[in-house]
Amino acid sequence: MATDIEIARAATLKPIREIAEAAGIPEDALEPYGKYKAKVSLDFVAAQQGRPDGALVLVTGINPTPAGEGKTTTTVGLGDALNALGTKTMIALREPSLGPCFGVKGGATGGGYAQVVPMEDINLHFTGDFHAITSANNLLAAMVDNHLYWGNGTGLDARRISWRRALDMNDRALRGIVASLGGVANGFPREDGFDITVASEVMAVFCLAKDLADLQARLGRMVVGQTRDGRAVTAKDLKADGAMAVLLRDAFAPNLVQTIEGSPALVHGGPFANIAHGCNSVMATRLALKLADVVVTEAGFGADLGAEKFLDIKCRQAGLKPAACVVVATVRALKMHGGVAKADLGTEDVAAVKRGVVNLARHVENVGKFGIPVVVGLNRFSSDTEAEIAAVQAAMHAMGTEAILCTHWGDGAKGAAGLARAVKGLIDGGRADFAPLYTDHVSLAGKIETIAREVYRAGSVAIPAPVAAKLKRFEEDGFRDLPVCIAKTQYSFSADPTALGAPTGHVLPVREVRLSAGAGFVVAVCGEIMTMPGLPRRPAAESIHLDAEGRIEGLF
Amino acid sequence: MATDIEIARAATLKPIREIAEAAGIPEDALEPYGKYKAKVSLDFVAAQQGRPDGALVLVTGINPTPAGEGKTTTTVGLGDALNALGTKTMIALREPSLGPCFGVKGGATGGGYAQVVPMEDINLHFTGDFHAITSANNLLAAMVDNHLYWGNGTGLDARRISWRRALDMNDRALRGIVASLGGVANGFPREDGFDITVASEVMAVFCLAKDLADLQARLGRMVVGQTRDGRAVTAKDLKADGAMAVLLRDAFAPNLVQTIEGSPALVHGGPFANIAHGCNSVMATRLALKLADVVVTEAGFGADLGAEKFLDIKCRQAGLKPAACVVVATVRALKMHGGVAKADLGTEDVAAVKRGVVNLARHVENVGKFGIPVVVGLNRFSSDTEAEIAAVQAAMHAMGTEAILCTHWGDGAKGAAGLARAVKGLIDGGRADFAPLYTDHVSLAGKIETIAREVYRAGSVAIPAPVAAKLKRFEEDGFRDLPVCIAKTQYSFSADPTALGAPTGHVLPVREVRLSAGAGFVVAVCGEIMTMPGLPRRPAAESIHLDAEGRIEGLF
Repeated sequence: MATDIEIARAATLKPIREIAEAAGIPEDALEPYGKYKAKVSLDFVAAQQGRPDGALVLVTGINPTPAGEGKTTTTVGLGDALNALGTKTMIALREPSLGPCFGVKGGATGGGYAQVVPMEDINLHFTGDFHAITSANNLLAAMVDNHLYWGNGTGLDARRISWRRALDMNDRALRGIVASLGGVANGFPREDGFDITVASEVMAVFCLAKDLADLQARLGRMVVGQTRDGRAVTAKDLKADGAMAVLLRDAFAPNLVQTIEGSPALVHGGPFANIAHGCNSVMATRLALKLADVVVTEAGFGADLGAEKFLDIKCRQAGLKPAACVVVATVRALKMHGGVAKADLGTEDVAAVKRGVVNLARHVENVGKFGIPVVVGLNRFSSDTEAEIAAVQAAMHAMGTEAILCTHWGDGAKGAAGLARAVKGLIDGGRADFAPLYTDHVSLAGKIETIAREVYRAGSVAIPAPVAAKLKRFEEDGFRDLPVCIAKTQYSFSADPTALGAPTGHVLPVREVRLSAGAGFVVAVCGEIMTMPGLPRRPAAESIHLDAEGRIEGLF
Repeated sequence: MATDIEIARAATLKPIREIAEAAGIPEDALEPYGKYKAKVSLDFVAAQQGRPDGALVLVTGINPTPAGEGKTTTTVGLGDALNALGTKTMIALREPSLGPCFGVKGGATGGGYAQVVPMEDINLHFTGDFHAITSANNLLAAMVDNHLYWGNGTGLDARRISWRRALDMNDRALRGIVASLGGVANGFPREDGFDITVASEVMAVFCLAKDLADLQARLGRMVVGQTRDGRAVTAKDLKADGAMAVLLRDAFAPNLVQTIEGSPALVHGGPFANIAHGCNSVMATRLALKLADVVVTEAGFGADLGAEKFLDIKCRQAGLKPAACVVVATVRALKMHGGVAKADLGTEDVAAVKRGVVNLARHVENVGKFGIPVVVGLNRFSSDTEAEIAAVQAAMHAMGTEAILCTHWGDGAKGAAGLARAVKGLIDGGRADFAPLYTDHVSLAGKIETIAREVYRAGSVAIPAPVAAKLKRFEEDGFRDLPVCIAKTQYSFSADPTALGAPTGHVLPVREVRLSAGAGFVVAVCGEIMTMPGLPRRPAAESIHLDAEGRIEGLF
């Protein structure tokens, strides 16, 4: 069986200007980056604003397990299949982070015959967007310390600086540092640390801004810390917003690539799905909606985190109204939710499927609460048995939804034809009536409670007094109307990663809250969250190299 | 008078494929980055190796002063003027560093009507090369700490780790840090720090490697630290070399841009001229020599540092043989060498010119020691008087060299026509007989002494016993044949930045020596060197922003 990289390399790519032309983007609106990648000019994007929007389809998933689900693959396969059916479709995806490539993870560009290409480029530096975001993040950090160094005119309390530095690298040594050591010339020593670039608020701002002016304004609103008496100091107070916007200007134009089957794909931005909202840029999604009749996009992690944030944060802020949603599952993953160990997944176990399907059922039900019709994409593995598949399909049928078998990994577009027809049916049915789960005017604690009750099915929310006081303070400072962005484990509906299936009655512990004033949400941290990954004992980097012809070996 | 950025924006650029075609690079050898920048494919570069080389012209300068000299501007103006004379000429320059753009410095792409464009792009992210170098540097750093974390199989002594992290940012807070704080999960706390990317050995390696295989091999030889008993641990020992080469692969292809007058320019790589050798990549220089009859290139700082390293390190390693050299000076700068304060430069002072011209004379004499014929390019300022200019020209004439007045800043190619004819005359005269200042087989201390005596005119070299022992150790470890790279102040022939003019008899104090085994040189640190700049009280970043049309304001 061919590997993803072998399939990607064997694919014949079209020049990106041909992909663009078919998508309605003239050559003079392209900034090429090599022959197969291009940025679409911001002027062209702006000029499309009067056009009607296509239908937006969200691809989300069950709570992830080590068995794998194939959400990106389904996003790509579905887009290809819709195009094959004659529906003009674009795909909108996140850009992969460079750091994890050198750890344990493969690429993030789909798999098999459902990939976006050129996959090596997209998984490595791509068009440099993440580097620009890293630079903007770190310029602000340098300006914070420079501000302290030259007299600290704002009265920023060095102990209350929340702005951290960033690198697009898995590097645990940088999680906690003391900076400015070495004497007078190097500044005032203080505790600091680095997050991976995708966890930077700059990344979230980049992905939620609707134009350059909004980008610069959001950057200016970002809070870098507090004064001794609790007053927020912002990037604008330090006059860093303009230079940061300059660093991001070119990156802010969406990136156009293609799938192996030639569908146009906008791959742009990639915020973490824990501390941020986990989906591609508003710029890319809105452009795609102007150009295509259907746009297929993806949200990170399971639907409890990814879809909820996509709908309550991104769609709310950008005024998007999804027409349909696909929840991706696999028999194998559902068996894990039913209690089967990974090593035993090869053995038929219909009872386990029936136990585990509750996870899928709840995600389907949850998406319905947003007023969006749902279909399930069931990615077939060769080890799946007919009886196991039938058990999933029966459970979904019983709740008024279909589970459509998909084989796009091995078969490309035709493997997702059924799913595409079902999605088209949902769109054409016109049943979508999207509304976010809560209105802006609910209190911040009330928003957390709504999500906990309606999506996580928690019995209660535990907000310690100091955290509640902080929420109160955010509200008094004028941030009551912001949505909340919950950071919790992706493995469970609850905050306990081992509670698979569909737990109820649990307590959601809100450990900490943070204001992301530029991104425009309040982060509620529920449990441990990791904002800088580490490398494993044997990092993938050790086996990555160039062969004698200069080709990359060992990356995927 | 129009500013540099106004002139650059008003210029009509040709599509980069037209520039390439005229330079002999077919479109299929280009990887475009937007419409006006492109990388030239490594396959095309390799395919040119059988062709004869053009003539290599080095542009260097007197010791820099706050008055400014205009070395890059002269490089560009000379290239344009040679092309205007009908000599097929390419320009090879360093890429600017991003960090200083936000501090005090303007761009590094020339000035007036002698600029490479698009200047905003080149001065900001350009084609992402420096970001790739930053990533490679920091992947190695992450792998060093990961190696300690997972058991430290090589026995690396955490106190003897010399590999530092890097960012392309002016950030004094990162000069000295303690990393890996926060408990067991974050590793073993240790002292560390960041250098600006241009000071990374990866940058030097990138600029000296002759092909991808050489790049990967050099990366592998880089020393990250020592074991307790003094054995070197390399990037290859940590299996980081392959992944680093993968990160650098695309960046390693030279970047093609154009001057305002349409000359082709390769702008590629940019190592610091103190801790490294301070000139553009070997890849770019060698490609240019294959494509053009004359290649004009530049070395950093004054000729005592930049030209010496260009000749003794880059030309030695790459087998290059310069045909001619231009030493750039201005009347104003020579007056400062003659003791005039910056505020008084507007007043005619022929006596000061005559006192200061000794600095220029010595650089001219020094270049002659390498067997290269020299001409002086005298950049004219409006405040220069005829008598002052005549004083410089007379002094040069007396030593058998011409000082040619140049006005390319305001006049473009025609302002450097005289210089171009003089350079062409030197090339056609065929008098060049290049040899480095010392042979490989001299001891490391002997090489330092040769440079000190012949170039700096020091009376003696002070090498403390521990430094001498370290040199001895390098020699025993097999590095005796490497050239030395001296890091000292650029403002004087001596290690004292206030000793202007042409000091003699001074002592060169060698404070420290470092092995750059990947770059292939031994750094001798003579005085303070700065490998991470800071931001000034009012950083340029504070006034940089996007205007309502998304244009960059305040950058230059």
